[in-house]
Amino acid sequence: MTDKIRVAVAGASGKMGREVVKMVLEEPAFELAAAVGRTSAGQDAGAAAGLPACGVTITGDLEEALRGGAVDVLVDFTVPQSAYDNTKTAITYGVRPVVGTTGFTPEQIDELDKLCRSRGIGGLIAPNFSIGAILMMRFAAEAVRYFPHLEIIEYHGDRKLDAPSGTSIKTAELISEVRGELKQGHPDEEEKLEGARGGYYNGFRIHSVRLPGVFAQQEVIFGAFGQTLRIRHDSYDRAGYMPGVKTAVQKVMTYTGLVYGFEHLMDGGEEKRS
Amino acid sequence: MTDKIRVAVAGASGKMGREVVKMVLEEPAFELAAAVGRTSAGQDAGAAAGLPACGVTITGDLEEALRGGAVDVLVDFTVPQSAYDNTKTAITYGVRPVVGTTGFTPEQIDELDKLCRSRGIGGLIAPNFSIGAILMMRFAAEAVRYFPHLEIIEYHGDRKLDAPSGTSIKTAELISEVRGELKQGHPDEEEKLEGARGGYYNGFRIHSVRLPGVFAQQEVIFGAFGQTLRIRHDSYDRAGYMPGVKTAVQKVMTYTGLVYGFEHLMDGGEEKRS
Amino acid sequence: MTDKIRVAVAGASGKMGREVVKMVLEEPAFELAAAVGRTSAGQDAGAAAGLPACGVTITGDLEEALRGGAVDVLVDFTVPQSAYDNTKTAITYGVRPVVGTTGFTPEQIDELDKLCRSRGIGGLIAPNFSIGAILMMRFAAEAVRYFPHLEIIEYHGDRKLDAPSGTSIKTAELISEVRGELKQGHPDEEEKLEGARGGYYNGFRIHSVRLPGVFAQQEVIFGAFGQTLRIRHDSYDRAGYMPGVKTAVQKVMTYTGLVYGFEHLMDGGEEKRS
Amino acid sequence: MTDKIRVAVAGASGKMGREVVKMVLEEPAFELAAAVGRTSAGQDAGAAAGLPACGVTITGDLEEALRGGAVDVLVDFTVPQSAYDNTKTAITYGVRPVVGTTGFTPEQIDELDKLCRSRGIGGLIAPNFSIGAILMMRFAAEAVRYFPHLEIIEYHGDRKLDAPSGTSIKTAELISEVRGELKQGHPDEEEKLEGARGGYYNGFRIHSVRLPGVFAQQEVIFGAFGQTLRIRHDSYDRAGYMPGVKTAVQKVMTYTGLVYGFEHLMDGGEEKRS
Repeated sequence: MTDKIRVAVAGASGKMGREVVKMVLEEPAFELAAAVGRTSAGQDAGAAAGLPACGVTITGDLEEALRGGAVDVLVDFTVPQSAYDNTKTAITYGVRPVVGTTGFTPEQIDELDKLCRSRGIGGLIAPNFSIGAILMMRFAAEAVRYFPHLEIIEYHGDRKLDAPSGTSIKTAELISEVRGELKQGHPDEEEKLEGARGGYYNGFRIHSVRLPGVFAQQEVIFGAFGQTLRIRHDSYDRAGYMPGVKTAVQKVMTYTGLVYGFEHLMDGGEEKRS
Repeated sequence: MTDKIRVAVAGASGKMGREVVKMVLEEPAFELAAAVGRTSAGQDAGAAAGLPACGVTITGDLEEALRGGAVDVLVDFTVPQSAYDNTKTAITYGVRPVVGTTGFTPEQIDELDKLCRSRGIGGLIAPNFSIGAILMMRFAAEAVRYFPHLEIIEYHGDRKLDAPSGTSIKTAELISEVRGELKQGHPDEEEKLEGARGGYYNGFRIHSVRLPGVFAQQEVIFGAFGQTLRIRHDSYDRAGYMPGVKTAVQKVMTYTGLVYGFEHLMDGGEEKRS
Repeated sequence: MTDKIRVAVAGASGKMGREVVKMVLEEPAFELAAAVGRTSAGQDAGAAAGLPACGVTITGDLEEALRGGAVDVLVDFTVPQSAYDNTKTAITYGVRPVVGTTGFTPEQIDELDKLCRSRGIGGLIAPNFSIGAILMMRFAAEAVRYFPHLEIIEYHGDRKLDAPSGTSIKTAELISEVRGELKQGHPDEEEKLEGARGGYYNGFRIHSVRLPGVFAQQEVIFGAFGQTLRIRHDSYDRAGYMPGVKTAVQKVMTYTGLVYGFEHLMDGGEEKRS
Repeated sequence: MTDKIRVAVAGASGKMGREVVKMVLEEPAFELAAAVGRTSAGQDAGAAAGLPACGVTITGDLEEALRGGAVDVLVDFTVPQSAYDNTKTAITYGVRPVVGTTGFTPEQIDELDKLCRSRGIGGLIAPNFSIGAILMMRFAAEAVRYFPHLEIIEYHGDRKLDAPSGTSIKTAELISEVRGELKQGHPDEEEKLEGARGGYYNGFRIHSVRLPGVFAQQEVIFGAFGQTLRIRHDSYDRAGYMPGVKTAVQKVMTYTGLVYGFEHLMDGGEEKRS
């Protein structure tokens, strides 16, 4: 018998999944109970993550991994197409989902919340596990109460397909809830190069920089008479998300119902969980 | 009869005082009731501030300026040696003090608070009127709950005498209240150039940069596994403090007792005033 | 008789012109010979610039100011519409032009160069007198030889009408001469918010931020495997251009012909002047 | 027979050595001829670097690795204590050294240069293989001709033992060659917290920040009337040095004699090699 939290990892072949496997294997309070991945099925999960073999073989079949009651938490970093089904399956088996995949509809989240409650377990869906990014968003939404003029610049690697980033859109949403719509810049301003002023979002602008060598950075800049205030978060590495995932795995054992957004598991977020 | 707030300015010859005179003359809701200054006594206050003459002659005598009941608020940007006496004098005349000078002892603040209450008027002593700087401090004190490793870098012009700046010390105090003492850096680290690691404050470091061309900037940098979070405030101009002074002049008309710290007049600061 | 350089200022009513008047009055090696300005004609030039009266009355008539042989250099910060005529007039009177206005055609520059040579005097037309901005451009054009992937972000006040800024376009031109056209970013990248990726220039992107409180800043960011290199210039004040204007007034006395670009008057630029 | 450059790696067990092994195995123009390392002797060099086994077994004996004429270049990232002997041994065997270890005396460099010339081969000793860092230093030394007031801030991880960093000292040396000694800051400035103003170097200051999450960053900030110019280099990863090592391995095949400093192998550095 063990007091360790038994964690299964879905998407164990992916970049984030391998980081999660590594974190679980290195965390004494956790035990790697199973690893699910299509492209690396049959390999040892530790070896696939660049560590010594750990004795857990990656399987292609999620249900096989969850069956038998030996799993407490499923960490899922897969793709939007499979995350909903995976999450539903996990809850059905009484396994708490910690999901880092995006693309859930409000209806799906509602349904999964009810499912969690009926099973008496907790769950988490979080587009962002970075404590720093969440603080950046929180501070930006606070600062805009005093400084309504702002722009967002986000930087990612040049292999990223979408612009602006999900985090910048999320930041813009949170800011807009406070600020409303206020059209910035000179009313007669003129772009001599189309797009120079960035993407328009409720009256302010979002700029997306894409360069090799950059992992993920974002700066929110507020300007006012005689001063600027800047809040900047730089991620250098996927590993930077692991402290958040680890906290999530521990906290999901302690409540009932599905929480959306890792910020609600941080201090001061308790009141937002029912 | 007028609904304008009648403002006297002490230190009207100084750099900040001239900015206050300018702000008061340009703000339709305010009226310049008097200007006090030693070195420019006899001059027109508007002209001394670089504006057209305004008809208010700078006087060297504070009591003369306050006497007669025609002043609502005294804005004082003088020097630590005279600020306590000026403030006491103002309250005695029933004039609300808004003081940007530092150097008050806790006992003095207590005494002046009682004096304000006995006269039934409000007052404010604030080392910093910059809304951006106050937000920077507030966010830093919040971030340190999650990221205990940080350093502070502050930048000022090369004519500044003291290092580190008052704002950086204040930030360090607020951070320390949350963080306690935690010694950062490698225990065996070695300075090959004395002072390279900066000033030591409760386990973290403060660095003071002094360069021509810089007015006042500060960055608080938090580092954690795979990420950094930075909160940076740049002041470009003394004028950047005037929105704060203006707010203070308006708010000091609305409450009773002496408030220490402009942050208590910002939204969300109400509960800290009794 | 005097050894001072006698300077006339055209555009003495404008923001830059007033700074030039101030610089000339405060520089012991210079003498303010005349000031030309439409909106402030009849005022004392010193007073109009916020200094004590200097005895030079602003005139609306450039020829009147230059006539009589008492002017060595004309500093012109007017508008594109009048700068060409002003410059021609100055040369005709044997007065060396130092022009900070943009909008000259290559043919006009050629013509004015010939005129300067036939009169045996020097002249300068310079879109930018900021030594820091010129170094930023020079370094960027050097760095791109090693790091072909870059983006430019420029920041200006929110009253600016055009985007991107003239300096950023000039920087982009100089970079392109070295780099050619190389399309950056993922070929399949997709703007979910139109304009988020900035203005397209020969394969890279320029982003224009417009915020109150900002004067003029620009950053060129180079990204490569595992690293970024950033070159950033911040101007806080029109006064920051005056060291360049002063140098130009002194140097224009020492050569023959019209120079285009202040960089040719900086050290190492000699070979570019014939 | 092969046209590939045959590379041996000394220090193959270390962090940098493993990156070099990886780079050599992944570069089609190179062949891994041998790997030398004490702590991992007997292991497969590829596997030790986190790649599939490559068939080259790490040996503890350098001479064994170099003997037999099958090696063109030795890349050495070991420790100061062994680098001199390793380099001498390599040259004796006719193997071109590319050394990333510091601590050579001028006399040793002289001696090794003569040895290289007598064997008719090239060699390189370079404290820094980062092209971006070298450009930062080059630009800083150029900018200081115009802006003599500067400070250096360097950021490294909190496990680093020495402060300031070698790169910042090297930057300070190059700047001092141009600038001489000029004491910055107010002559009466006073440190209220000892060390706040940083380490003193020929009149300017170096500040060393140490934080978890940071790999290696440096900013040189120049301040002048109304403006600042900043040159900043961020390294995110040891892998960022590999393009420089790769270039060095290729170039060392093409000249005779020992070059000190990777900058001499970059474009425009040719004239500094005899």
